[in-house]
Amino acid sequence: MPAYRALRARYGFLELCKNPELAAEVTLQPVAELGVDAAILFADILLVVEPLGVGLEFAKGEGPVIHRPLRTMEAVTNLGPVDVESEVGFVFETVRRVRRALPPGLPLIGFAGAPFTVASYLVEGGPSRDYRYTKCLMYDEPEAWHRLMALLVDVTARYLGGQIAAGVQAVQLFDSWVGVLAPEDYRRFVLPHSRALIRALPGDVPVIHFGTGTAALLALMREAGGDVIGLDWRVDLDAGWRAIGHDVAVQGNLDPVVLFARPSVIQDRVRAILERAGGRAGHIFNLGHGILPQTPVEHVKALVDMVHQLSDRRGTA
Amino acid sequence: MPAYRALRARYGFLELCKNPELAAEVTLQPVAELGVDAAILFADILLVVEPLGVGLEFAKGEGPVIHRPLRTMEAVTNLGPVDVESEVGFVFETVRRVRRALPPGLPLIGFAGAPFTVASYLVEGGPSRDYRYTKCLMYDEPEAWHRLMALLVDVTARYLGGQIAAGVQAVQLFDSWVGVLAPEDYRRFVLPHSRALIRALPGDVPVIHFGTGTAALLALMREAGGDVIGLDWRVDLDAGWRAIGHDVAVQGNLDPVVLFARPSVIQDRVRAILERAGGRAGHIFNLGHGILPQTPVEHVKALVDMVHQLSDRRGTA
Repeated sequence: MPAYRALRARYGFLELCKNPELAAEVTLQPVAELGVDAAILFADILLVVEPLGVGLEFAKGEGPVIHRPLRTMEAVTNLGPVDVESEVGFVFETVRRVRRALPPGLPLIGFAGAPFTVASYLVEGGPSRDYRYTKCLMYDEPEAWHRLMALLVDVTARYLGGQIAAGVQAVQLFDSWVGVLAPEDYRRFVLPHSRALIRALPGDVPVIHFGTGTAALLALMREAGGDVIGLDWRVDLDAGWRAIGHDVAVQGNLDPVVLFARPSVIQDRVRAILERAGGRAGHIFNLGHGILPQTPVEHVKALVDMVHQLSDRRGTA
Repeated sequence: MPAYRALRARYGFLELCKNPELAAEVTLQPVAELGVDAAILFADILLVVEPLGVGLEFAKGEGPVIHRPLRTMEAVTNLGPVDVESEVGFVFETVRRVRRALPPGLPLIGFAGAPFTVASYLVEGGPSRDYRYTKCLMYDEPEAWHRLMALLVDVTARYLGGQIAAGVQAVQLFDSWVGVLAPEDYRRFVLPHSRALIRALPGDVPVIHFGTGTAALLALMREAGGDVIGLDWRVDLDAGWRAIGHDVAVQGNLDPVVLFARPSVIQDRVRAILERAGGRAGHIFNLGHGILPQTPVEHVKALVDMVHQLSDRRGTA
């Protein structure tokens, strides 16, 4: 959005995240401009691990870089404790500011990275194509792996607890890259930790458990927990929902690339997704993954209108 | 492998592909050194589209680059015909040389890119994270898309026909990136073309239909055709095989990253995959995707031995 880009021209990404006044402003922009049904906190999944001292940097156009990646038991053992209140308290302050500014009835969704996805950045040193170092730490040094995951569960539970205490009304757990794993690896190396994290959160705050490329992991992700399971576009919404069971809600599942297409194409896709949801309660319409840079803002506005119109707000959160 | 790296120090990648003597040598290296049960032609899926005049180059460390990507109906309409015999006859000559050199009983597998995956390179101009231009051509210019796919079906059918005439005993169709698609997009924009291609091939040569990230596409890929369906590691072999039906063979499904782990880990994984195959005929043990650079060669040798030992050669091709 132009308003966000204007801010980014003046401030670095981390700088924006760490400034509650500006981060609150960015959080509120889509609510005012797009007409969405909830606000999502402006933050980054790696903020909470920056205090571990791994050398986090957001390099221009390259995404996050971790200058001292964790690839041994020694590196994992040497990680210091994180005091979330003093180290990432700026996020909680952003939450309080957004809650004060939001119109009544519009909920604020907080979030954190799920332990696997955060660990993958810490171990690879940034985004990866093959997740070779992450998987090798699992395979060859399972004790170091489980120790790192347990540490991330602890930090993340306190981080999300702080967001909830500050006022978020739901939390989303981003396991964005978990789809690179074989189901057996998920079961053994990820599920116990994601489950421990979700169980450590207050039971009255809904948890959205999100991943991509997870067609064969959905039942296991459901087993790990969450009140809502995210479905990307690579699985049909009805098939995915059947796989996890209709007693759990789902979120998704429009391909973000569809927003680059003509509005009539977008409308066809919205209609198809709503048909697959079949008017059931418990479907949150959303993109299957994050919005892409250069997405035409007027197409996003049109999408929000289409979803409202075609669903008659049935099934939206 | 060191022998391959020694050749690559002296020749460019395309240069090697186009030299039947050297390409045959490279094809035979793994057979001699690793003890695999079949040879796979050394070539590249983009060789057959280089004659289209799109400006193919293999840039160092970046993979293929297409300097004049196809993004409009005009660009698609202007593509010239490809005479496979004169333009990629060097591949057929490589096949003949390999067949003469291979020990009896060791089959040679030829291959081509499936129309979607080849189209994605032609439209994006190289590898992509989001396949935005490819999907937008589908969505916004479906006539141009279908015309491009039909052209690729025609060229690829003649290309694989030439390989078969020259002596390959099976062909593999690489739809490596098809897993980025929603099932509905696959059904509408890909399936008819992959089916047309597979139907255009001689019925007595087995076709291996390969993709990755395809957990939710397997039944559709089977509908498109193939005697063997590839399963990457992101789906359990038994679940994937059930999804496509036990009357079709499967290939897979070891995560290539496992080859970086300790041999005892590799052995556990081999055993688990063979257990999921359940001793059924029609399982070709293979990696779920291409081998990664820097994979320890001695681990690959160990893998081949483990598969032979643990399967007692049951179910291998």
